[in-house]
Amino acid sequence: MFVHSVYFWLKHPENQEDRDALKAGLNSLKGVQEITTVYIGGPAETRRPVIDHTYDLSLILVFADKAAHDTYQVHPVHQEFVAECSHLWERVQIYDVAA
Amino acid sequence: MFVHSVYFWLKHPENQEDRDALKAGLNSLKGVQEITTVYIGGPAETRRPVIDHTYDLSLILVFADKAAHDTYQVHPVHQEFVAECSHLWERVQIYDVAA
Repeated sequence: MFVHSVYFWLKHPENQEDRDALKAGLNSLKGVQEITTVYIGGPAETRRPVIDHTYDLSLILVFADKAAHDTYQVHPVHQEFVAECSHLWERVQIYDVAA
Repeated sequence: MFVHSVYFWLKHPENQEDRDALKAGLNSLKGVQEITTVYIGGPAETRRPVIDHTYDLSLILVFADKAAHDTYQVHPVHQEFVAECSHLWERVQIYDVAA
């Protein structure tokens, strides 16, 4: 499996419209057939020094393998998401896991 | 769902025995009934500035809800893992997602 985790920090986290727009964009990614499982969410209520809860939204995608992930990266639905939503975030942090 | 992602940096990443011991410890966690899905792995071959590939091993656990995660945290199998393996890592970084 290949797990692609993306954490997003919004430019304007106080702006509910921005947050909703990014969430809608993340949900649009579910249209990519190569994705096996999608988890979209935000920071849970856990607090410990080793936990980073400062992000605003997160996207965790599971793929069968790296090839499926690579197809997703260049998929028109993903490219449209980046074109439409990248102005909303200040920072992204990604972890890719070969599992 | 509740997704608990842990990234581990080994104290001695060049030591294969340490790596194997941590991997065995991570695999032992599969014995916790409250876990819905387990992904154990390491950095994929993707390289971009926004991707952190510097960790050595990773554990992504999916739970039905926060209550199941909280039970896992105090589960004897998890506590034994921490007691047996925590000397192996230099750093952990955790992201908890309410999805």
